[in-house]
Amino acid sequence: MAEEVKSRGKLFVISGPSGAGKGTICSELMKDADPAELCLSISVTTRAPRAGEHDGVHYYFINEEEFEQLRANDGLLEFAEVYGHHYGTPKQKVIDKLNAGIDVILEIEMQGALKVRKTYPGGVFIFILPPSMAELRKRITGRGTETQEAIDYRLSQALSEIAYIDKYDYAVVNGKLDEAVDRVKAIIKAEHSKVTEYIYKMIEQYKEDE
Amino acid sequence: MAEEVKSRGKLFVISGPSGAGKGTICSELMKDADPAELCLSISVTTRAPRAGEHDGVHYYFINEEEFEQLRANDGLLEFAEVYGHHYGTPKQKVIDKLNAGIDVILEIEMQGALKVRKTYPGGVFIFILPPSMAELRKRITGRGTETQEAIDYRLSQALSEIAYIDKYDYAVVNGKLDEAVDRVKAIIKAEHSKVTEYIYKMIEQYKEDE
Repeated sequence: MAEEVKSRGKLFVISGPSGAGKGTICSELMKDADPAELCLSISVTTRAPRAGEHDGVHYYFINEEEFEQLRANDGLLEFAEVYGHHYGTPKQKVIDKLNAGIDVILEIEMQGALKVRKTYPGGVFIFILPPSMAELRKRITGRGTETQEAIDYRLSQALSEIAYIDKYDYAVVNGKLDEAVDRVKAIIKAEHSKVTEYIYKMIEQYKEDE
Repeated sequence: MAEEVKSRGKLFVISGPSGAGKGTICSELMKDADPAELCLSISVTTRAPRAGEHDGVHYYFINEEEFEQLRANDGLLEFAEVYGHHYGTPKQKVIDKLNAGIDVILEIEMQGALKVRKTYPGGVFIFILPPSMAELRKRITGRGTETQEAIDYRLSQALSEIAYIDKYDYAVVNGKLDEAVDRVKAIIKAEHSKVTEYIYKMIEQYKEDE
């Protein structure tokens, strides 16, 4: 039967400028996700936890020495330095999930996304855009956790990151959160309908049926 | 504002073997479609209407002479002969809708789909598959409108059509109708999130914002 054909999971890389809302979109996605179908990769980081962030949930918070060891042992799918802190994706966990047929979402900064694009071209790359630069400024300012210098730096970074959008497969404008989440869900569903090796296997089974 | 960027409509070609359910899927799609966003192209055909089929709704029913005239005047986007009857897609109506920014769905046989793939490579090609050949046989037999010879012919045609699946972008298995319809809707939504010229225009606007 067609339904029995097992395919590998797909890697979805969700990226975009700070303040565009990629973290919120990923949290919403995971709310009604079946863990046997979709999981979120948890990154390691050397930055300190923000209020409300928990180790093993939002990030694995590690120190510089631990990070260096992981990197030296080829244990990271990608890593990047952002605002002076290190971030990275533990490689083996992602591979295990994909091999088990589970989709994996990586929510990472652009530097990391571009590295994954090179090492894992089979991934699906989604860029989250703010509806406008004015709105992005409002969101970053509204956090209340940043100095004016940090805000200006984030905005100029956002503009230069958006220039790399052609390295991505999809762009999702995060104006209304539920619409943006629906759009990412549609992308995941559509990607699983692409004509691939999986479909060719099904076809072989039709021939055996007859 | 980003929302004001106008993009052309997209052409979605829905095809697949007789009995796979492409017609039913298209009818369901149109039920909650906004005519300002999505419309179904109505084909011309020289075959006689089946019970319940209406001119201008399911097809434009025309005679051989009228068909020849349309074809001679380059008035068809594609045309095909299936089981001894002619089918075709009126070209100008499709182009007008696309230019107005409205998506157009073409529900056509494989011969026609492959022609459109050549003349309109910007189209999105979706193949509807039956869940199994056994189920396809059941569906075709269940219609009660076909002779045994016609049923056998349709089944062998189905197998040879499925061999062309690599000419399509997406494959949707029509086991449960609502799931298949959801999947086609997801494909339409995802296709509108692809990084395209439209996105580049938005990016230019971000720069002007700042």
